[in-house]
Parts: sequence; structure tokens; C-alpha cells
Amino acid sequence: MPIIASYAAQSATTPLAPFDISRREPGPHDVEIDILYCGVCHSDIHQVRNEWGGSAFPMVPGHEIVGRVTRTGSHVTKFKPGDLAGIGCFVDSCRTCVNCRDGEEQYCDGGVAWTYNSKERGTDIPTFGGYSTLIVADENYILHVADTLSLPGVAPLLCAGITTYSPLRHWNVGKGSKVGVVGLGGLGHMGVKFAAAFGADVTVLSTSKSKEADARKLGAHDFLVTSDEEEMKKRKSHFDFILNTVSAKHDYGQYLQLLKLNGTMTLVGIPPDAIPLKANPLISRRRSLSGSMIGGIRETQEMLDYCAEHNIVSDVEVIPMQMINEAYDRMLRSDVRYRFVIDLASLKV
Amino acid sequence: MPIIASYAAQSATTPLAPFDISRREPGPHDVEIDILYCGVCHSDIHQVRNEWGGSAFPMVPGHEIVGRVTRTGSHVTKFKPGDLAGIGCFVDSCRTCVNCRDGEEQYCDGGVAWTYNSKERGTDIPTFGGYSTLIVADENYILHVADTLSLPGVAPLLCAGITTYSPLRHWNVGKGSKVGVVGLGGLGHMGVKFAAAFGADVTVLSTSKSKEADARKLGAHDFLVTSDEEEMKKRKSHFDFILNTVSAKHDYGQYLQLLKLNGTMTLVGIPPDAIPLKANPLISRRRSLSGSMIGGIRETQEMLDYCAEHNIVSDVEVIPMQMINEAYDRMLRSDVRYRFVIDLASLKV
Repeated sequence: MPIIASYAAQSATTPLAPFDISRREPGPHDVEIDILYCGVCHSDIHQVRNEWGGSAFPMVPGHEIVGRVTRTGSHVTKFKPGDLAGIGCFVDSCRTCVNCRDGEEQYCDGGVAWTYNSKERGTDIPTFGGYSTLIVADENYILHVADTLSLPGVAPLLCAGITTYSPLRHWNVGKGSKVGVVGLGGLGHMGVKFAAAFGADVTVLSTSKSKEADARKLGAHDFLVTSDEEEMKKRKSHFDFILNTVSAKHDYGQYLQLLKLNGTMTLVGIPPDAIPLKANPLISRRRSLSGSMIGGIRETQEMLDYCAEHNIVSDVEVIPMQMINEAYDRMLRSDVRYRFVIDLASLKV
Repeated sequence: MPIIASYAAQSATTPLAPFDISRREPGPHDVEIDILYCGVCHSDIHQVRNEWGGSAFPMVPGHEIVGRVTRTGSHVTKFKPGDLAGIGCFVDSCRTCVNCRDGEEQYCDGGVAWTYNSKERGTDIPTFGGYSTLIVADENYILHVADTLSLPGVAPLLCAGITTYSPLRHWNVGKGSKVGVVGLGGLGHMGVKFAAAFGADVTVLSTSKSKEADARKLGAHDFLVTSDEEEMKKRKSHFDFILNTVSAKHDYGQYLQLLKLNGTMTLVGIPPDAIPLKANPLISRRRSLSGSMIGGIRETQEMLDYCAEHNIVSDVEVIPMQMINEAYDRMLRSDVRYRFVIDLASLKV
């Protein structure tokens, strides 16, 4: 097996550093991909620092992968060498549970094989992510990527894109919907782009007035500073749907009050701790507080095709692999608009 | 105006005692009802003791009212003297907001006039509830009651009945649905009856094994003791819908885990405090935590008609008005199966 260059964390307290890994030879259903770009997701930091618990080291993060097919197994029908291809948050699932059969593999009851910090299904072989130059995966868990879009901007679609696209579709956001997007980061900026593209009336809710100009540039029609009590009162029972992308501790009730009858607020960020919730904002207007996690393979492909058709990509800042630790520090200060993307050419020199 | 016998609380710390009230003369759209029975809801205790704040005294509780029409205003078309009639939790609403226009008056944006502990709309006149012998209300907020059902058992349908019927309908519970009912009290026992009548597979979830025989008698197909960790694990991702009737502090996450993909748990009890909630049980299977409050007039009538057709009433213990304080004490010990109903004949002698 060839040696593959990567950046890995050796423990929860060490910075990322060069590391050599190996990948399996492509099996009959496998596709080998030369990685061109990999987005940097906030969950990379959570896992590298073991903030969710259960992290396994050495860890090669990265699940927003775009590259070009180099080899395919004998039974592969969907890809051929030279094709652009993408890999998101998972590379396998049980394929037999009701959720897999329904194309919702991300909710697999048998256990998803995540793209990194996980095991290849039925083995003890660790999975390594996209902070590396090459990856091998089953063709059924690989996405087609159009050659018309800017590739660095496509990478974050594989996680930030589908994480926001899927709930907006699931809760039928479209023309006439009044949609709030809480938080304007990697997830939030994609939520605004999609909700606006779907024809919704989009309001960004933020603690910081300074994001208003950006929000409007991304497609938002309105902007609400959440500390402005008067303005918040005016939007009581206003929204059909709120996409909540915040992963810091915050008060759900404050936002739930803004939903009209039968409205839903969906969490796509994961605050680390339990958050106190009163029943009244739910009961008083039959509101729902929900959660959503990435999307299945079929829907991820649908999202990528939609992006190709509507020329939607993530707003990114491209960095070399060697800048990853600095990028993490800047992400923790919210100093990125809106996603770092690693150019893996930097690891191939 | 005639003097009407009632039982009232003069403050949050005094027991209920006899009190004389007056009611308005029936206006053109009003119906006067001789009250026969009034159910005793747990929210009566909360409000009498000012546990939700904002209680106004003297307070005559009671919003599960069944009686017989005695007089009607000149423009009344829906009722005539001699008809059986019911009044639930509210007696008026703005009639112009989107929710009123949609027949969801309980969620009125203009402000509902509750049956007691409220004001007649646009006035400072307090509303008094069904712990009294006579009531006057607008015909549009009065329900028709079939003469084929046991009247004491009908009274609790006006609150406990519609509070459980409405969410089961809203979330499309029917044949093939796997439904959990948390808590087997005044609300829970009606939830079991309705869910079973709708053709669902019904499981009662309770802290106490002692309720199993009763649960099965009411129509439950299964019973789950929530302290049994092994059994709880087996039902992970099992239910389509959970009706949560508990108003004491409890862990939502424990129950959310039992929902399958896209499942919903709906709160109909109101725990007094905020309850810590983790995002993960919502996100990991796109689950929802929702709330629901009674039902609109149209749906309440639909529920009463359904009960008449399917011979469904509440299981009750009939008491004279004079026993109300003892009944409250017993309710606080969960010593009632499943609803006290006051026979107002006891106030007319």
C-alpha cells in the first residue's frame, strides 16, 4: 500500500502535524480519489480536541472532500478515472435498516461509518478524512461533482451545504415562507443562500449588527439584532421556519416565540451542554423544536445538482495544509468568511 | 341580574368556599346554560394557587362544563332551550386574526377570553367558570353534546378530551402508528382511549408498574416502566409519536430517544420550570419536541361527535361541590381514576 501524506492530531492536546497513512487498495466497488480540496468544518475542531468525547487518535479530520477519480474497482459503474467526485461526512452504512433503505443513510440504525474518527464497517480499521492527498471509498457513498462550479467553493457543500439544504427541503421552505436563519457562519451563510434560492423571505438573526451588510449580500431580505427587544417583540409569531445554526449555548425560547402557529425551529448546530427549555413557547402556538443532521446520499447529490444549476457555492478562504492550526484559531474567533478550504496541492509538493 | 351560587377562591392560600356571583343577561348572540356537571382539571389547582402567576381573585374555576340550555338570545340559531350544551376552556376570542379565521381560536393572536381567571373581551369584567350553577356565553363558543353519553363522563372531554384528541389528529395518528402515552392521569387516560380508537398501537409509559392493568383496560397494547433501562433500550427508535401528559419536572431526552426518524413528542402538560434539553436526541434522528394546547371550537365539536359515535367518555368520580377541597388534595396525591366531576345539583338544593 502506498504511503499517503496527511495532517493528523496525535492527541486531543497536540496541534495537527504531518503524518503518513495508508489506504486500502480499491476493491471491486471502490473508487480511489486524488483529493484536490477539503473544507474545514467546526466539528473537525470539536473532534480533534475530543470535545464530544470518544475521539480516537491519530486522527486525520476532514469530511468536505472534492477530488478527481484516479482508479475504480472492477464492478464500479458510476465513476470512471478523470471524473470529479465528492465525499461528505460518511463513507458507509449498514444498507439494510429502514433508514438506509429509505435513502437516509445518515440516520442508519446499524451504525454509520463516518469519514474520519470512526471505523470501516465490521472492522477495527480506523477511517481517515480529507486532510490527506488520497481517499478510497465505496462508489455508493461518493457524489458526482459538476465541473462548472469553483471547486474550492464546492467542498463545503458536502457538509455545510447539505446540513442546511436538507432541513429547508424537509420542512418545505419555498415561495411565501418566512424563514429565519440564526447565526451567520459556515452553516448559516449556506442556509441564507439556499432559503433565498428557494424563494423564501429570509431574515438573518444575529447578536451582531455588523453582519447585516454581509447577510444582505448573501441574499437575506431582512436582519434582526437579537438583543433588540423591541424588534424581537415585533417579530413574535412571524416565522414559518427557523434554521438555528448556533452551536454555542443560547436560549431556544427567545427564538421559538418568533414562530407562528405550527412553526418549527430546527437545530443543526450542537451546543455542548443541555439548554433549559420552557414548555410554554411550544404549547402556546403548537410550535416544534427539531433537529436535523446532514443528509442522505440521494439528497446530497440532489443538492450538488441544484447548486450546479443555480451556481451556488460556499464563500471560502483557501489555505495550504500547513496553515491548518492557525485556521482553527481563527475559526474559534469567528474570523472566517465563511469557510476555510484546504488546497491539497500544498501536501503534494 | 340573578344571584348565582358558586364556589370561589378568595386568594391563592384560601380553600374554595361558597360565593355568590352574577352573570350578564343573555345578549342577542348569547346562550344561558344551567350547569349540570363540571370536571376538575389540574390547571384549576395551578390557577387557584397562583402557581402560573397572574391569578385574579375571587376566582371561580372550572372549564369542563356540561349543562342544559335555559334561554337563548334573539339572534341565536345554533341552540334552543332544552338542548344539552358544553363549554370548554375559552368563551371568546378576537375572531379576526389568522388563527381565529382558521378555526384555531385557542391560539388567538388577539387574546382569548378564558372561561375563568380572565376578562370578557374588551372589558374589565372577570370571567367565572363552571364551579357554579349557571353560565352565559356567545353561541359560537358553545358545543353541542349528544344525549346518548353519560353526562358526567362528557364534562372532562371539554378539556382533557380535546387536549389529547387534537395533537393525535394533528400528527396523523392512526392505523399502523406506534404511539407512546407518557403519564396515565386525566389527560393520559383520554390519550390512550383516543389513540386506541384511531387504530394505533398504544404503549403507556409510566414510572409505576402498578398502572399496567388499568392501562390495558383503557386500550393500551403495551406498557413500559420507564425506570427499566433494559426495556427502555429495546424501544429506542420505536415510536412514531409520543403524547407527553406529565406536568412534573422530567427528562425529555429519555423519551425522545424512543422516537424513530421524524418522530414527534408533543407536550400537553406544562412543567412549571425550564427543563434542560440536549440537542443530540433531536438531531440524531430528525426528531421533534412539540407542544399542543386544547383545540379550536370546530375540532372540539368534531371530538364530541366522535365520542358520541364511538361511545367514548372520561372515567370519572362524581363528587358534590362541597367536596372540592378534599378532591384537590387527592388529585395532588394522584388519587383519582381519572377525573373528578362536580355534580352541580349539590349547589342547587
